[in-house]
Amino acid sequence: MKYGQARGMPVFRDVLAKYVSEKFNTNVTQENIIVSPGARFSIFTAITTLLNPGDEMIVIEPAWPAYKDCALNAGIKVRTINTTLEQNWEPSIEQIKNTINTNTKMIVLNYPNNPTGKILPEKLQDEIIKLAKENQLYVLSDEIYSQYAKSNWKSVLSYNYEKSIITQSFSKSHAMTGFRIGYGIADTKIIEKMAKLEALCLTNVSEPIQYVAMKALEADTSDNTNTVQSRLEVLAQKANELGLDFVIPDGAMYIFARLNKEGFDGVQFANSMLEKGLAVAPGEGFGDYKNFIRISACQNEETLVEGMNILRENIKDK
Amino acid sequence: MKYGQARGMPVFRDVLAKYVSEKFNTNVTQENIIVSPGARFSIFTAITTLLNPGDEMIVIEPAWPAYKDCALNAGIKVRTINTTLEQNWEPSIEQIKNTINTNTKMIVLNYPNNPTGKILPEKLQDEIIKLAKENQLYVLSDEIYSQYAKSNWKSVLSYNYEKSIITQSFSKSHAMTGFRIGYGIADTKIIEKMAKLEALCLTNVSEPIQYVAMKALEADTSDNTNTVQSRLEVLAQKANELGLDFVIPDGAMYIFARLNKEGFDGVQFANSMLEKGLAVAPGEGFGDYKNFIRISACQNEETLVEGMNILRENIKDK
Repeated sequence: MKYGQARGMPVFRDVLAKYVSEKFNTNVTQENIIVSPGARFSIFTAITTLLNPGDEMIVIEPAWPAYKDCALNAGIKVRTINTTLEQNWEPSIEQIKNTINTNTKMIVLNYPNNPTGKILPEKLQDEIIKLAKENQLYVLSDEIYSQYAKSNWKSVLSYNYEKSIITQSFSKSHAMTGFRIGYGIADTKIIEKMAKLEALCLTNVSEPIQYVAMKALEADTSDNTNTVQSRLEVLAQKANELGLDFVIPDGAMYIFARLNKEGFDGVQFANSMLEKGLAVAPGEGFGDYKNFIRISACQNEETLVEGMNILRENIKDK
Repeated sequence: MKYGQARGMPVFRDVLAKYVSEKFNTNVTQENIIVSPGARFSIFTAITTLLNPGDEMIVIEPAWPAYKDCALNAGIKVRTINTTLEQNWEPSIEQIKNTINTNTKMIVLNYPNNPTGKILPEKLQDEIIKLAKENQLYVLSDEIYSQYAKSNWKSVLSYNYEKSIITQSFSKSHAMTGFRIGYGIADTKIIEKMAKLEALCLTNVSEPIQYVAMKALEADTSDNTNTVQSRLEVLAQKANELGLDFVIPDGAMYIFARLNKEGFDGVQFANSMLEKGLAVAPGEGFGDYKNFIRISACQNEETLVEGMNILRENIKDK
């Protein structure tokens, strides 16, 4: 009966450090890694331990709701930046500048993005990091969809910014969702703070699962990547045929589409679709996007086509 | 790629509810169960979600430090009750009464106790629960050592108190420490609050580990129980031969012994013993017990005897 290190088994963190260094063209050691039960827990510990009640955090919407939820749980004020389909889901540097004040302590990035699949143009991302450095903001970059990046994607690790925290997840990179294992990459000082809360909550991450993940790192995941990407293409093509408004995703596994119907209620629509056998997520879950739905490509092509047929029938009806 | 329910797989919670109902002679359903990565996380969510900053919590020492740590992390004030070896590690009702004030919201019980192995006399436990009810205190009863109770032990579940939270762990009952899986048992309203924070932090507990634990419930653990109990007896006998001051444990897997040396420093002693191949925990980790050390019975008998020989040599030296 033994307890392991809160931040993960040294042998696993060592393998992860080599994997990350090679894959993202950077240079990290096991001291820069914290293993957590899903990327979510690293997001939770980073936000909870690095920020204080009253601090502010910037989230660029549409966004996965967990960033906001973790911040609100810790008494952090969230300032959201609303981006639009017309803007091609790109925030402007001015938008971000105008949102920063003396209480701002962190900005969250998530590219490839859930739900839009967007990857920022490199120049824009460079400018955002520059702005974060100038204002000494933490950059929490959730990169769990990097495995499914189609276009020219650049990890925030490549900026070597000491106040950045990168999260990764085996749920996405290795399709191991139910296993609940991910990790954070950051400066040792940040990792130590996160590890302290992880020890308090969890003692350590399930070791059998750490061994499974360590083994999974040896696998060639290109087949899985190709499959997800080709499914996303099928989905995009079908969505196009249906005349949905959306930006062709640069990565991830979703399409975030606008249904141009008057009085459209995404929540109600998603619920009614569930009854008909189609699961979509209402846009409201990602910010002020009532007319949008998120469609996931995580099904085989046959099911995707079926689902899109259900969608077509029900858009017509309305 | 699917996410499970934050509070655990319904099929597993159902099996757990039946197991708990039978084992502890109570009547709970899956709605009363939350699966968590270790009992520790249920303790964390219970304390964090049921109490508010400024509330007070009572801990009877010696105690596992996690209760206090979780409370302090959430801004809760901890009032400790110091019990002594001379008191046979029993708090008096007066001690507890005198510690309760209008801010007191929770009392923590942990019997069989870590580190003393103490089980409270039934009448005293009845009185404590009565007092808790009168003052509307939550009772957090960490019962992870119940599997190793020698004498007449009674679960707090048997009081049917709607403000009680019982924690259990496969680490102890099924010697599955590295797996990190435990559970909480409480009223549905309490479970819902705990589940909300668990969802925020973790999404859900690793499902493969839930399946392993579900299977483990079918196992006959009496061999393991007997082994732990006989090791504890060997340990107690050896400790007796060494003339250590301690109360014969009623359960759990430890002896909490006083070394009657002037100027004894448990932390320093534990460190120096580590170098000699003996791992003991200093009493200070469990409260104001500088002259004490906790000796664990979690080794085979040969190793236990070896360890106690090292201890004898080093007590003599001093």
